[in-house]
Amino acid sequence: MLIRLLGTGNAAQIPVFGCDCRVCARARVDERYRRRPSSAEIVTSMGRYLLDAGRTDLAQWLDPSVLRGVILTHYHMDHVEGLFHLRWGPLAPIPVYGPPDETGADDLFTHPGCFDFSHQLTPYEPTVISQELTVTPIPLKHSRLCFGYVLEGRRESVAYLSDCDGVGPRSLDTLQRAKPKAVIVDCTYPPGMGRNHFSLDRALEFAATLAAPRVYLTHIGHGLEQHLIDHPLPLEGPVSVASDGMTLSVE
Amino acid sequence: MLIRLLGTGNAAQIPVFGCDCRVCARARVDERYRRRPSSAEIVTSMGRYLLDAGRTDLAQWLDPSVLRGVILTHYHMDHVEGLFHLRWGPLAPIPVYGPPDETGADDLFTHPGCFDFSHQLTPYEPTVISQELTVTPIPLKHSRLCFGYVLEGRRESVAYLSDCDGVGPRSLDTLQRAKPKAVIVDCTYPPGMGRNHFSLDRALEFAATLAAPRVYLTHIGHGLEQHLIDHPLPLEGPVSVASDGMTLSVE
Repeated sequence: MLIRLLGTGNAAQIPVFGCDCRVCARARVDERYRRRPSSAEIVTSMGRYLLDAGRTDLAQWLDPSVLRGVILTHYHMDHVEGLFHLRWGPLAPIPVYGPPDETGADDLFTHPGCFDFSHQLTPYEPTVISQELTVTPIPLKHSRLCFGYVLEGRRESVAYLSDCDGVGPRSLDTLQRAKPKAVIVDCTYPPGMGRNHFSLDRALEFAATLAAPRVYLTHIGHGLEQHLIDHPLPLEGPVSVASDGMTLSVE
Repeated sequence: MLIRLLGTGNAAQIPVFGCDCRVCARARVDERYRRRPSSAEIVTSMGRYLLDAGRTDLAQWLDPSVLRGVILTHYHMDHVEGLFHLRWGPLAPIPVYGPPDETGADDLFTHPGCFDFSHQLTPYEPTVISQELTVTPIPLKHSRLCFGYVLEGRRESVAYLSDCDGVGPRSLDTLQRAKPKAVIVDCTYPPGMGRNHFSLDRALEFAATLAAPRVYLTHIGHGLEQHLIDHPLPLEGPVSVASDGMTLSVE
């Protein structure tokens, strides 16, 4: 299976509206530097799944005939905004897997359209989504009820941990036991900054405790991106900054 | 001043996700037939105003240095969704004029960012937005507290009435007295269909009571668009179907 990151920006995205910093100015000219809101696609031979749906242009390239489900980390708008349009499709119910959030986002639960939000997941309980994909919800510290996921293929797994400002002991233990080949983790802010999301120093410290072969930083804010221009990550290390369009393969 | 319609579709937009009707198939190939969610821009010599903000790509072409304010008809997601990204701009507070809605949309009121939502308007009370633009809120019948507007330039006015399933006597009287040169009115459904929005028969009947020289139908659903292919409006009549990008001038 493939995990394709479609949006690696934070809620403000890059470029930030009205911001003329060098990072935002660069992204306004060169598409490759844009960071769209949190969205990813999990591609299996039996269909595709959205992993968060913050991008609002999903309908333009998503093939509804192969969309088998949506997996949500939480119901902040920058992770679900794309569903507000998609829901009006004349489609059979599409299961949405996510945390047992009572309110959802705006009127999604009262007007679900083609989405079935009843598939609430239980922390730490592996859930078989298809023969090729098992997900294990990992509660994360955030300003709202939020799950990370261990995404397990037939032989390998990847951890997707956004949005995150730390984890409790059981989440840490579950992640360490899963031995993911790669960890994709929230890193919104420059060192020492912000809350509810990891800053670079805290993300790196956390990632080290998981000892994963590869770590990809996501949910990148423009402040962090500015910092990284002046203080790039060591090329030979296990940590990279993710980018929109990046694709990981998971056997 | 100019009123540029940027989105003349309903919440489902055209094309509807996953719909293969001839209207949606056509719009998927030919951009000119797309109908995006409710958004318009009012262009004056002293700056620009958004009139609803349902489009989520506003940041890509909106110049923040000339954005003077936002005028909202109501807080349904397809009319405000674009604000969720724009709000994080590092800008001086941008006034948002709209109905006295207590909840707004999702977390817009608790995290307003650069928007100032305190500019609640009073029904029927003309409000001077700038030397070139006075707006008069017209309560409309809809599933949520919703204002239409008489948009008054120096010598002429236009009425913008979306979303709408009728008006009460005082709204009708105010609209008739305003003598707008054009009325832009909700027409979501084919004749005899739907609720909370005008169907074609009801929109035409209502428009006739206003006796405006020009009537433009907006908030068009794909079902109405299919109907109009087989039953086009008379070319010589006062009523036209609006389209994305259409621009009206108001002296």
